[in-house]
Parts: sequence; structure tokens; C-alpha cells
Amino acid sequence: MLITRTTRALGLFSSTIKSTSYSSFSRLAPFGQTYTRTLSTTTQATIPSYTVNKDRLWNTIHETAQWGATPDGGIRRLALTDTDKAVREWFVSTTQSLGCTVKVDEMGSLFATRAGISTSLPPIGIGSHLDTQPAGGRYDGILGVQAGIEILRVLEENGHQTYAPLAVIDWTNEEGARFNTGMVSSGVWSGRYALDYAHALPAAEDKTKKATLKSELERIGFLGSVPASYQANPLSAHFELHIEQGPVLEDEGKMVGVVTGVQSMGWLIVTVHGKNQHSGTCPMARRACALTSAARMISRVEEIALAADGLSTVGVINSWPQSPATVPHKVVFSVDLSHHSTEVRERMIAETSAEFGRIAQANKCTVEIEDIWNSPAVQFHEDCISCVREAARNAAGEDNVKEMMAGAGHDSVHTSDRCPTSMVFVPSKGGISHHPDEYSSPEQCALGAQVLLESVLRYDDQLKKAAL
Amino acid sequence: MLITRTTRALGLFSSTIKSTSYSSFSRLAPFGQTYTRTLSTTTQATIPSYTVNKDRLWNTIHETAQWGATPDGGIRRLALTDTDKAVREWFVSTTQSLGCTVKVDEMGSLFATRAGISTSLPPIGIGSHLDTQPAGGRYDGILGVQAGIEILRVLEENGHQTYAPLAVIDWTNEEGARFNTGMVSSGVWSGRYALDYAHALPAAEDKTKKATLKSELERIGFLGSVPASYQANPLSAHFELHIEQGPVLEDEGKMVGVVTGVQSMGWLIVTVHGKNQHSGTCPMARRACALTSAARMISRVEEIALAADGLSTVGVINSWPQSPATVPHKVVFSVDLSHHSTEVRERMIAETSAEFGRIAQANKCTVEIEDIWNSPAVQFHEDCISCVREAARNAAGEDNVKEMMAGAGHDSVHTSDRCPTSMVFVPSKGGISHHPDEYSSPEQCALGAQVLLESVLRYDDQLKKAAL
Repeated sequence: MLITRTTRALGLFSSTIKSTSYSSFSRLAPFGQTYTRTLSTTTQATIPSYTVNKDRLWNTIHETAQWGATPDGGIRRLALTDTDKAVREWFVSTTQSLGCTVKVDEMGSLFATRAGISTSLPPIGIGSHLDTQPAGGRYDGILGVQAGIEILRVLEENGHQTYAPLAVIDWTNEEGARFNTGMVSSGVWSGRYALDYAHALPAAEDKTKKATLKSELERIGFLGSVPASYQANPLSAHFELHIEQGPVLEDEGKMVGVVTGVQSMGWLIVTVHGKNQHSGTCPMARRACALTSAARMISRVEEIALAADGLSTVGVINSWPQSPATVPHKVVFSVDLSHHSTEVRERMIAETSAEFGRIAQANKCTVEIEDIWNSPAVQFHEDCISCVREAARNAAGEDNVKEMMAGAGHDSVHTSDRCPTSMVFVPSKGGISHHPDEYSSPEQCALGAQVLLESVLRYDDQLKKAAL
Repeated sequence: MLITRTTRALGLFSSTIKSTSYSSFSRLAPFGQTYTRTLSTTTQATIPSYTVNKDRLWNTIHETAQWGATPDGGIRRLALTDTDKAVREWFVSTTQSLGCTVKVDEMGSLFATRAGISTSLPPIGIGSHLDTQPAGGRYDGILGVQAGIEILRVLEENGHQTYAPLAVIDWTNEEGARFNTGMVSSGVWSGRYALDYAHALPAAEDKTKKATLKSELERIGFLGSVPASYQANPLSAHFELHIEQGPVLEDEGKMVGVVTGVQSMGWLIVTVHGKNQHSGTCPMARRACALTSAARMISRVEEIALAADGLSTVGVINSWPQSPATVPHKVVFSVDLSHHSTEVRERMIAETSAEFGRIAQANKCTVEIEDIWNSPAVQFHEDCISCVREAARNAAGEDNVKEMMAGAGHDSVHTSDRCPTSMVFVPSKGGISHHPDEYSSPEQCALGAQVLLESVLRYDDQLKKAAL
């Protein structure tokens, strides 16, 4: 058995991966939570009680769905395509009409900044993304940005100036569907990825590899000059409203998720080597069947995940030589393992590797395991979590609130490296996302926006009290 | 659960199937063992004791390997290519020089007939094939034809005229590698396939589908006028020497296999339907993972085959949508099941279907099972088997002979429908075939040819005694 921790290119899956993840090979060191600011959380909050406009938010979500709307009720709005250009132009003009100054950074991320009383504090970010998967829905990412715009409208109609500036952010290419690194712009901003790496990402649909993220930014007029950097363009904090993309809130009858972090996750690529043998003439006892071994491994990794209270998924499997009459000599499959705890996930990998080696040997096969991507668990900042917690309890009632970790990556993973961050989740119908059937109701969207608004106002209140 | 017995085109695997099998959809009715002749087996055999020339046979095998020889020691001689044309021309001139009359039938099969004393009996066939798999070896099929030519040489040098004529046969496209129906020419001869169906088979490498079996026969000058029919061009019997293509003789230390028939075999295509879910956010208990189900099915069918003393192989598996971060909604895999008994194989299919349904349901999935090809067990004719048995015992000693069923298809399956048939097996090193490493030693090849010679002479002796 050979276990390698490598950074090999995903050649095998390159045409099919729908990545919302980052690849370790392009990371820049150092990263991690490098800021030290902690606000007092004991100060009594004195925030105004504004209410978001449910219908206005709902209408905005569905009116702007015109850019990329598909007949099945979904959206196809791949990053930096003409539909993305259109919704970006709408974002710029809409936020400008609400009094914002719009900055475009080198990654094309849009920062619509509304001035605060303080002229020295960096803005509180309210960010998510307007791009979608190829057959995406109307809420993933979009709800977070549109809720930010709804917050601008509420503050505007109430004539409220926050202490810190606010920045509603549309992070470029969060999905990684067109340029195959997910959350890439927040990753450049946080220093996790090099700008050159990100700029050179080819457009997935362009076989000539001439269209890159940078050339597409230029083509649609959104290659900005503001450095894509937390140092040059800092944030005081980052809040993100998102649909859950899972069924937990719905199953448990909860209305709001207070997101305390993001679970540890990553992928193994497992290659089982056996021997080509004739299906009709080779006795069972003589065989070295790569797929018999693989089937046992797939069942075993599920048991390991269940025992550890983690998640395991084998999403990709293929056999060679693809002949019904030949015992396959090679099977390759992916293993996605995730757990709230980085340490427990590491133990899951160790156990999986040992068990796969044992199963291979028992079946006269060999196995190679490559750890091609892994992302440690992210713990969001207690200052932000407590703002979301209080806001959620206030808006939905304590019984309707669940504290949870996110199971998927979000731009907040990267902002969390550089500024206090937390997220708000609202239920996804049936746990469905990345699909036209993705749905959260007008009430669910509005409640999420309300919690986002109150979270931001609570954090602003803390910044103000800390400054005074 | 849906179980269908269909004849669907093998679209999914069409580019990858290495078929040595026939498809039920092209069968012509009626077929089956329709002849009634049975010879007395109690008559004392009085056959001459000629000996094949080991070195001459070995040299012929390896000299003719020039047509299609590959650097790794194998042969690539796809049916009706220029290399096949070359070896056919050699076959014709060699057998003619040995006094044979060569008939070419409408399928391009070559019948090199050596006259017997009787002018009314059809010839005793000694047949196999000279085509190979794309990366084939030097013995599969070839040994059977070259042993036939060695027999002609032995009889010629001993001035022996058999009672019945003999026909050394090169059956066209046995491998089915270039024209994707294996054993197709013996199948047309036996009436199992229509001539038009066989003629229209496209060459696998020709994307335009213009090159067909018939056009390629014309191109290389081997489209004969003799009807490809057991009625117009009958045989008294058919004997075939072949490498085992399995490790049983080698493992058991036996020198010759007396082949009593061909096991029942066939393919299921299994489609498991689950649900696309997010690997990071969907709890394990909520999942309907098509691959988790499939892995259990693959382990279960192996248990079923082991318990029934049969064989099961899952050679092809693929998942959809091939995303490591998505619980797959669909998995398709093949199941090859074989057993000496048609009835037991039917029970294996029934149990497999029931278990797959149960497993799918337990995992919130559904399953479709298509029985796309099945071939009942073939029992060879006792007259021919007894000739091979006596010849083998005489040549190798009783302790070195094993009676066995063939695990793979051969032209003898089809001839067995229309005339008494049996086969001789010799060991394959490591059970390897369809591979350049395929090997049987000079001694093993010669012993097989010796048994083939004596089998034919014994059968001829019986025909003579029955006629007199």
C-alpha cells in the first residue's frame, strides 16, 4: 500500500469537477487568522429595530434572475459571462443610487461602500456572490448579496448612518464552475492564492485556453485597479447570509442557523490495482479483482464515517478496461471525507488508509491513496457569532435557532483568515442546491436578511463602543 | 425494482466491449442440436499411431506470427485486415500444397478439405481461428488451426487416407474484436445468425461505418461463394484444440482438458438510481447514494456466485455526475454470471435480482436490471467427447487428463448445434489469454495436437465402421 499526500493535477476529473473548493497547490503562505482584535461582548447592545422589506427583497431576487434565467426556474450565470456582466452593471448602478461608492478590485470583486460616521474604520463587509453553477438556482450566493442591498435600502429609508462604513460585496467566481477554483477572489483577497495564479485560470468552456479569468474580466469591463488584498482593502468584519444547502434546518424545524465555522473537508483519490482476468475462465479464488476490493472499501469508509459522526462520499468511480467479460485490473474512486473536527477527520483518513490497505491485501490487490485536497476546520469569530446569535434569537425566537457548522466552502472561509467573520443560514427546501429546484420561501429569505441586518448593526454598535 | 429481459443495444459500452459472445437479438430460429446421428462407441478402435512433429508445429506457429507480430511478443491480427489477408493466403497455399481443396464461404471462412475414401460423407472439421484480439497472443485460436495443418502434414507424410474427408477450418472473426459479434461465422454457418446481419457488421475502427464485414471480405479477396450453411456445406463432426484461457489445468497439474461442453453465461446491466446530494451538507441518514447501494450489490453478487459454485464478475462501473463533492444519483455496472448449469445460473439471476432490489430499497434507491445477453450451457456430443477422452488418456495418461467445461465461447458452441462436437484444451500459462503474455510450451502445443489427431482418427474409425 502506498499513501501519498500530493498535489497532483486533477487530470482524471478535470472535465467534470464542480469545485467549490480550493486546491492546496496554489496557496500562499502564510495564512490563518492573523488578526487579533476582539471586541467586548458584554456591552449592552443598543441597536435600532428596523425591518427588512420582505416583498422588495423577494422581487429584487426574482427581477435580477432575468440575467441567466433558465426555463426550469433556475439560473445559469457563470462568472464573467455576459449575464454576469449584466447583473454586475445592475449591482453597480443600484448601489450607487443608494449612495454607495463602488470599488472594483483586481479580481473583479465589487465593494459597494456606504460611508459610516468613522472615517478611519474599515467597512463591515456583507458579502456573497452573484455567479451560479451551470444549472444553478436563484438563491445560492444571490440571497446574500441581495440581502446586503436590502440592508442598504432599509438604512437609507430610515436615514441611519452606521458608525463603521458598510461594504456590500459581490465576490467574483465563488462557484469555481467556470474558472475551476472556487472562492478564488476571497482567497486572493485573504492572501491564500496568488493574484497571478487566479488571473491565469482558464475558462472551462474554452478549449483553446486563451480565455482566462483576467481576459474575461477585461472583456466585460470589470478588471479593477483596487488591490485584491486584505491589507490594501481591509474589512472590519465579514457577515454572509446563505441558504443552508443541506436539509438539517428543515428537518429539525429551525428557522435560522448561526454558523460557528466550517467543517474540515477534503478529497482522497484511491487507485486499486488488481489483475485483468477472464470472467468465464478464472476461478473466483484466483482473482485479483480491483472492483471487488473497491466495493468493500466503499462500504468500509461509510462505516468509518458513521462511527466518527462524520461524512463520507464516494462520488466518482470508474473501472478499467470497461469490459463486462474482464475482471477489472484498475478502479479509481474519490473519497470525500468531512468532519467538524480537523483532528477527527485526520483520524478518519488514517483509519480509512489502514482499512483500504488491509482490504486490498486480502483481495490480492494493491492500493494507492492520494490526499489531493484537504481543508482544516474553520472556527468563526466569537464576536461575529454572538452578534448573529443575538440577532437570530431576537428575530426568530431562541427555539427556532440552531448553531451549526457549514458543510460547504464559502467566501467567509477566506475572510475569516483576515477579519472576524460569521454566517447566517436559512433553510433550503429539501436540502437542494446547485439545482433549479433550489428554494427558500419569501419569509425565509426575509428572516435571513433581518438577522443579517441586526447582526451588522450589533457589530457596528460594538465597534462604536470600542472606539469611543 | 424493475427487471427487464431486453435486447437493447450496448450503447453504453459500445466502444469498449471485447465480445467473444453473440447477441440474442440477431439469432435465427430454429437452432439447437438438430442432428440425430449417434455412433456406436463400443466398437474397438483400430487407429494408426502417428506422431505429430513438435518442432514443425512450433516453428509454424511462430513463423506465421510474422503477420501481425507486436514487439512485446504478441499478435495484433484483427479480422479481415491486411495481416489477416496475409495469413489467409499462407493458409490457402500451404493446405493446397498438402493436397487440399480450399473452399471459401460467404463469410470468408476457409475450409481446406483433404479427400477421404468415402465420397458421400461430409468432412470431419478441425477448426478454430487465425484472428486475434487487438493486443492478443500467439496461441488463442491459432494453435487450433495450426494443429489442423500439422495433422494434414502427418497424414501426408504417412500416406494415410482417412475414411471421411477432413476439413481444416479457419472461422472468420471469431474474436468479434473488429466486427463486434464474436464467433459470427460459425454462427451463420449453424443458422444462429442471418448472413445479412453478419455482412452488415461495421468495422469497429471505421467511424464512417462504411467498412463492413462484407466490404472488407471483398477488399481482401475472401468473399467466397460457398453458402455459409451447415446444410449446403455440412460437417460430420467438429473438433477444436484451444488453449484453456484459464488457470485450472495448470493449477491442478493436468496436461489435457477433455471439454464436455460450454458453461451457461451472460450479462446483466444494472442501473441504480439515487439522488444527487451535497457531500458536505447532506447527513448520512438522509442520503440515497447510488454508489453505496451499488457497492453492497457488488459484494452481494460475489457471495451469491460463491455459494452457487459459479462465477460473477463486475467488469464495468461508472457513476454520475462524476463529481467528488456530489452523492452520485446514478451508477451503472455490468454483472457477468456463469455456471455449468443453465438452471443454476437462472437461480443465481433470480437471487441477484431479489437481493439487488432489497439493497436498493434499504438504501432509498431504485434499481433496474436488464438481462442483455444470456447463453445456455452447451453439452458437447458424447461420441466426440469419448474420442477426445480416449485420445487424451492414450497420449497423456489418465491421471493427467481433466474433464471440464469451457468458460468462454468458441466456434464449437455453434458447430455443436449442427454436428457432433468436442474440444481439447491445453494449459495456458498463468491462465492468461487475450494478451501478449499468453503462452503454452512447445510440449503442451504438441500434446494438444497429438490428442486432436488421435481424436479425429478415432472418430473417423467410428464413421468407417458405421458405414461398412
